Amino acid sequence: MNLLQKKILEDGVIKSGDVLKVDSFLNHQIDVPFISELGKEFKKIFATSRVNKILTVEASGIGIACLTAIHFGVPVVFAKKSQGSQMDPHVYATSVKSFTHNKTNTVVVAKQYLNAGDRVLIIDDFLANGCATEGLIDLAKQAGATVEGVGIAIEKGFQGGGDRLRSHGVRVESLAIIDKMDAATGKIQFRD
Amino acid sequence: MNLLQKKILEDGVIKSGDVLKVDSFLNHQIDVPFISELGKEFKKIFATSRVNKILTVEASGIGIACLTAIHFGVPVVFAKKSQGSQMDPHVYATSVKSFTHNKTNTVVVAKQYLNAGDRVLIIDDFLANGCATEGLIDLAKQAGATVEGVGIAIEKGFQGGGDRLRSHGVRVESLAIIDKMDAATGKIQFRD
Repeated sequence: MNLLQKKILEDGVIKSGDVLKVDSFLNHQIDVPFISELGKEFKKIFATSRVNKILTVEASGIGIACLTAIHFGVPVVFAKKSQGSQMDPHVYATSVKSFTHNKTNTVVVAKQYLNAGDRVLIIDDFLANGCATEGLIDLAKQAGATVEGVGIAIEKGFQGGGDRLRSHGVRVESLAIIDKMDAATGKIQFRD
Repeated sequence: MNLLQKKILEDGVIKSGDVLKVDSFLNHQIDVPFISELGKEFKKIFATSRVNKILTVEASGIGIACLTAIHFGVPVVFAKKSQGSQMDPHVYATSVKSFTHNKTNTVVVAKQYLNAGDRVLIIDDFLANGCATEGLIDLAKQAGATVEGVGIAIEKGFQGGGDRLRSHGVRVESLAIIDKMDAATGKIQFRD
């Protein structure tokens, strides 16, 4: 069992509706020294990739993205949830369906911060159905950038998004993949 | 002239309505190695404060807060913009007026992550009229926590929020204070 799996068992709380709350260390309170260790792990995993930029989406991806980028020595670009409905010619835009909040957001990146020639590593705290990750891949593609891979802290394997991306040839590396979890018993089963 | 002031002169863009865009290194693209140097600077400034937690607000405060916390070896807690209007008994809530977006947001922190006995350093990318900072101070007070100080990257001194907080006895340390800026000429005048 790795450090993140251990932390999830200690501090994660399973809620109904397949929700795993890890507010105590990942996405409300951020255990910065611990998350920085996860960033170091991503650096090891993607050691041979020539990553020059890390891409994530606000808000909860920003912390882990910055604490990974520090080990790569590269900048982070975070996609923003768009306020307006008008199309701004200076941004790449894509739609992301959130099942948790049951709505579709437009997320955007200013064109000047994502370019052809960029070798992008996508970092996020969670991957469930994969919609957010697909949105970020779409933004990178619009820019003509190369996606070197996707680094995820916690993948809800049972929701299938990660495996669908892998079947399309995307390199998805998750530090903990949950294949089963049960709100009634509190049991979590990780993929080996 | 310090590193941040130099960077602002090089990469900042003044827009009408007293807006300074620093999207290229601070709040859309994050120049992580550079912002980490600012974090190191905050650690020097607050070296004698016994900070055990850094408090910020989503989304653009998260990056600089994490890249400061890494030098303190402490966690970050970020206040969230509340979705609902109902009061949740498990959170501290406060109202923050945003002049940029001309609306008032409720921001919240789960009670379990902010406690009496906490010695909090508030970190944010910008301070203008001071409403966001006052909101964070209010959350800390509700929890009975002590605010050791406030560390800001860029203070718009001409909007008065920083000086008002200082006059109330809050220790506000800004790495760059802009006393004057002019969209027409592009000139920026820093406080000494």
